[in-house]
Amino acid sequence: MKIGFIGLGIMGKPMAKNLLTAGFSVKVFNRSKDSVKELVSLGAIEGKSIADTAKDVDVLITMLPDSPDVKEVMLGKDGVFENTQGHFLYIDMSSIAPRASQEIGKKLLEKDIHMLDAPVSGGDVGAIAGTLSIMVGGEEEDFNKAIPLFEAMGKSHTLIGKLGSGNTCKLTNNLIVAASMAALAEGLVLAKKTGTDMTKVIEAIRGGSAGSNVVDTKSKKMIEETYIPGFKIDLHIKDLRNALKTGEEVNSYMPLTKLTLEMLESLSRDFKMGNDDHTAVYKYYLSRSED
Amino acid sequence: MKIGFIGLGIMGKPMAKNLLTAGFSVKVFNRSKDSVKELVSLGAIEGKSIADTAKDVDVLITMLPDSPDVKEVMLGKDGVFENTQGHFLYIDMSSIAPRASQEIGKKLLEKDIHMLDAPVSGGDVGAIAGTLSIMVGGEEEDFNKAIPLFEAMGKSHTLIGKLGSGNTCKLTNNLIVAASMAALAEGLVLAKKTGTDMTKVIEAIRGGSAGSNVVDTKSKKMIEETYIPGFKIDLHIKDLRNALKTGEEVNSYMPLTKLTLEMLESLSRDFKMGNDDHTAVYKYYLSRSED
Repeated sequence: MKIGFIGLGIMGKPMAKNLLTAGFSVKVFNRSKDSVKELVSLGAIEGKSIADTAKDVDVLITMLPDSPDVKEVMLGKDGVFENTQGHFLYIDMSSIAPRASQEIGKKLLEKDIHMLDAPVSGGDVGAIAGTLSIMVGGEEEDFNKAIPLFEAMGKSHTLIGKLGSGNTCKLTNNLIVAASMAALAEGLVLAKKTGTDMTKVIEAIRGGSAGSNVVDTKSKKMIEETYIPGFKIDLHIKDLRNALKTGEEVNSYMPLTKLTLEMLESLSRDFKMGNDDHTAVYKYYLSRSED
Repeated sequence: MKIGFIGLGIMGKPMAKNLLTAGFSVKVFNRSKDSVKELVSLGAIEGKSIADTAKDVDVLITMLPDSPDVKEVMLGKDGVFENTQGHFLYIDMSSIAPRASQEIGKKLLEKDIHMLDAPVSGGDVGAIAGTLSIMVGGEEEDFNKAIPLFEAMGKSHTLIGKLGSGNTCKLTNNLIVAASMAALAEGLVLAKKTGTDMTKVIEAIRGGSAGSNVVDTKSKKMIEETYIPGFKIDLHIKDLRNALKTGEEVNSYMPLTKLTLEMLESLSRDFKMGNDDHTAVYKYYLSRSED
């Protein structure tokens, strides 16, 4: 199976590597060329341009920051759609707005390009280890074709529903994570301010009804105030904005998403912490709790 | 060891039973006498009054609804303090305000009554099974004396710190649970409104960063809209109010607690659902998301 892969960032580069390791032929493209060189040294073919990377492939994959990037690469003047014969499977693994996935997918069908939206969770650690959770929207037939690729990159892949629902699922995931993170910070700061041992509190509650992956993996980072990413605040902001936009389209009540977005936006804007880990929401709580 | 036990509600009754089963001598008191009869048939002694129940005990335990109830029983005119020789260990296992625990404990010391605050999590299911998580505040020496009792009622017991910190820990637990519950509802309603299969979304996210005990145990109840308690909304309201009160005393920033309290208060007041399970926050979200 011949694969084109566009976007070799923190996530895309290890994902493309895992496809190579699994024995697929992979042609790669990235704006910054260091990643391209690294992948070529591992057996990848260098795409000369976006259009060239999408030429004669069975499957094209993109892993890009946000909706406008995916639109530009796929539908822009020098993009895939304008310069292809079509007839292949396109998998967008970026985390973007569900509506954007649907719009792009509809346009691509004119050249018989079938699209799946397949955002992932698990971060760079999961991307490197090939243990991502992959949430997929699209047609079942297309999903089945993509399974060997998903198996090379992830530990699980779930077909949620029609195109866009992979991203809806990801937004749900990330709004729950944002609120869980803020709740943990709110509880820890209450403990701290009352002079209660935060580590003991976590020890006492982690096995019970308040237990979660966020409590298990993030409380130590908060208590120690180390905010090395992990998951960057600016990327979480993007997801929460997409979640709110999606919620507005369908009139969904989203006060926690609004509130946690404001916290992260303040950290990015006022604290210049956009590139720090989202656990820094604890710092935001501390700053709002000063006597 | 001779134990007095006051408060045989949904939680207190099975907890007292487990003490009997473990071989302790237990004298019980409750306003409604059906529970008393049941316990007596299992070998408990009937306390004639609050004062009588606290007479000649090594340990007195209370399991009552809120701070005013504990104050009344311990410090009221017909209560324990006014009618006792003192010199015993007192364990309040109610979930009350940390400040109230500290005030009561300070007064009781005048008669050499040592107090532990030891609220529990795990619900009626955990109380019956003897698998409660017990969060304890007080002196280590007193905690050590109480361990055989905690072992009869719970699966874990953690000394958090000084008197009141058991309740601070419990409030932290319950504010995290409230926010996690609302976040789950917010995510599910977004999925529902966009026409996304909620069960598939849960399946895809539960093993990842958004995974939690709340997601595991509460999402099905929300999706099926069954709100049988479980944990009653009015009791969760009490905990969140105590959390906010505690937060105000120490100037702790608690916007999620405020927001989720408003949701639960509306369910109790406007929807008359105070006796339903707190998963009904999903219903609140649905009602706020109508077109």
